Amino acid sequence: MSVSKESLFLNDLYSSWLRRSEGMDLAGQRDMFEEWHLPTIEPTDVTYEEVTANGVPATWAKPLGAAEDRVIVFTHGGGFVTGSRFSHRKLAAHLAKLAGVHALVVDYRLAPEAKHPAQLEDCIAVHKWLRTQGYKAEHTATVGDSAGAHLAISTVFELAGMALPIPAAVVALSPWLDMEIKGLTIESNDAVDVLAKRAVLEMMRENFLTDLSEATDPRANPLLRDYTDFPPVYVSVGGYETLLDDSRRVVELIEKAGSEAVLDVVDEQQHVFHFNAGRAPEADQALNRIAQWLRPKLGLA
Amino acid sequence: MSVSKESLFLNDLYSSWLRRSEGMDLAGQRDMFEEWHLPTIEPTDVTYEEVTANGVPATWAKPLGAAEDRVIVFTHGGGFVTGSRFSHRKLAAHLAKLAGVHALVVDYRLAPEAKHPAQLEDCIAVHKWLRTQGYKAEHTATVGDSAGAHLAISTVFELAGMALPIPAAVVALSPWLDMEIKGLTIESNDAVDVLAKRAVLEMMRENFLTDLSEATDPRANPLLRDYTDFPPVYVSVGGYETLLDDSRRVVELIEKAGSEAVLDVVDEQQHVFHFNAGRAPEADQALNRIAQWLRPKLGLA
Repeated sequence: MSVSKESLFLNDLYSSWLRRSEGMDLAGQRDMFEEWHLPTIEPTDVTYEEVTANGVPATWAKPLGAAEDRVIVFTHGGGFVTGSRFSHRKLAAHLAKLAGVHALVVDYRLAPEAKHPAQLEDCIAVHKWLRTQGYKAEHTATVGDSAGAHLAISTVFELAGMALPIPAAVVALSPWLDMEIKGLTIESNDAVDVLAKRAVLEMMRENFLTDLSEATDPRANPLLRDYTDFPPVYVSVGGYETLLDDSRRVVELIEKAGSEAVLDVVDEQQHVFHFNAGRAPEADQALNRIAQWLRPKLGLA
Repeated sequence: MSVSKESLFLNDLYSSWLRRSEGMDLAGQRDMFEEWHLPTIEPTDVTYEEVTANGVPATWAKPLGAAEDRVIVFTHGGGFVTGSRFSHRKLAAHLAKLAGVHALVVDYRLAPEAKHPAQLEDCIAVHKWLRTQGYKAEHTATVGDSAGAHLAISTVFELAGMALPIPAAVVALSPWLDMEIKGLTIESNDAVDVLAKRAVLEMMRENFLTDLSEATDPRANPLLRDYTDFPPVYVSVGGYETLLDDSRRVVELIEKAGSEAVLDVVDEQQHVFHFNAGRAPEADQALNRIAQWLRPKLGLA
C-alpha cells in the first residue's frame, strides 16, 4: 500500500499545526484550525446560503440539481473547541453533491465558552427547526467528522430521548467518541498520526467538559450508549489514526445491539483525510462510497 | 451621520486584530487576516470553481444567470503579505452577482517570499490566460481592495506597457497606492481608522519592497503614473480611512490626465468596509453603485 502524493497535503498541514501550536493562545489555535478548509478543493455547481436555524447559525450547501427535500445535517470537527461552518463548508458540499442532497453545516457553540452539553442543545434546536421548515426526519442524515461525528451520533440519542423523530442514517468521519481517551490506537498509532496526539485530545476534552467525571456520562461518551434500534451508521476512518479504535469499538457496539453499521478503514490515511476532497483519490473514493450507501437510506434511487 | 450597527462588525474585527497582532509571527498574521471573510455573508446563487490560470491559482465565482463572457479579475488586499482568494471569495462574488458577471479571484504570490514585482507578473499571467480562454479585454475589469487595488491599477499599466489589450474599467476599493505613505489622512484619520495605522502599512511595505527606494518607482507606486488614456476608474472608500488621501489623489491625477474617475466616499466607514457585504447597508449600497457603473463599461445593459 501507499498513499497518493496529493493526500500528503493534509499531512503537511497537520505537521505545521503541531509545530506552530506550542504556546499558542485559543484565538490563534482557532485561526490555525480554520486552515482545515485548505486541502478541500472548491466543489463546482454548489450554491450556499446562510441561515439562523432556531438561533443557531448555519450554512446551506445546495448542489445544483440535488433533491431539495433531503438533508445532511453536518456537524464539524475541531474537538468542540475549534472549527466552524466555514472550515467545513467545502467538505460538506462535496458529500452533499455526491449524494445529491442539500447539506446544512451547523455552527454550534464552541467550548470552553459553552461547555457540554451546549453543543447537543444547539444540534437539537437545528433539528427542531428543520421540522418547522418541512424537512422530514426520515429524509435527514446526521454527518460529522471527529468531534462532530460524536455530535452526529449523540444528537440521534438526544432526539430519541425527547421522543422526537430521528434521522434515517448517521455518517461518522474519523469519529472521536471516547472522552476517556483509552482506545488502543492512541498509543499504537501515535507515531504515524501526525495530529491527534493524546495531548491534543486531552486539551480539547478539558475545554469540552466541566468535570472529568463527565467522561463516563453516556451523553458525553457515545461508547457508553445502547445502540438497540439505532439508525444505520457508516464509519469512515483512516488507518493511521490514533482514534481508529473509537471507530472499531462503536461499530462493534452497534452490531452487537443488532443495528446496522459499516466500518470503512482506508489504509495509511490521516485523521479526517476526507478534507482532501477534490484533491486526493482516497478522499474522493471514500466520500463516494459513503454517498452511495447514504442515498437509499434517504429514499433516493 | 451615523453608521449602521451591522457595519460595526468590521470595526470589532479590526480592533481584535490590532490587539492580537503584537509580537505575532507571519503565519499567525496570515491566519488572522483570513478572518476577513467573516463580515461577508455568503451570497446566494453563486457557484465556484478553482483553476490554475497560467500557473497562478485562482477561483471563479459564477453567479447563476450572469453573463459568462464578462469578467472581473479580483486582486485581494492584505498589504501584499496576507489575504487570499479564500478571504475575498465572498466579497468578489457579491460584486460579481450585482454586476451580473463572473469574477476570477487571484492568488498572486505573497511577500516577503515573493517581492515586488512578482505580484504584477502573476496578474499579467492571469490576463494572458484569460485571452487564451476567449475572454476579451474589453469585456474585462480589474477590481481590487487595498493593496489589491494597487494591483488592479498597476496591472493595466503593465499590460499597456507590453502592448497587450487593456481592460475596459478599473474598480479600486479603499486603495493603498502610495508606497511613500505620505497621505495627509495617515495622521488626520489615525484616531478613527481602527486598522490601517502607519506602523501596519510600514510593516507591509517592508515585506513588499526589496529596497525602500522602490517606493518612488511608478511600478510600485501608482500615484507616480501618467493616467492619459487610462480606462475609467471607480474609487470607493471609507471616510474614516487613513488611506482616504490615496483615493483623493489618484482621482485627481486621473481627472487631470483627461480620463474618467469617480470618487465615492462613504462617511465614517472603515478600510474596505465592503467586506460587510450581505450584512450592512453601507457595503451593499456601495457595491450596488459600483455594479451599476460597471455594467455599461463591460457592454451590458
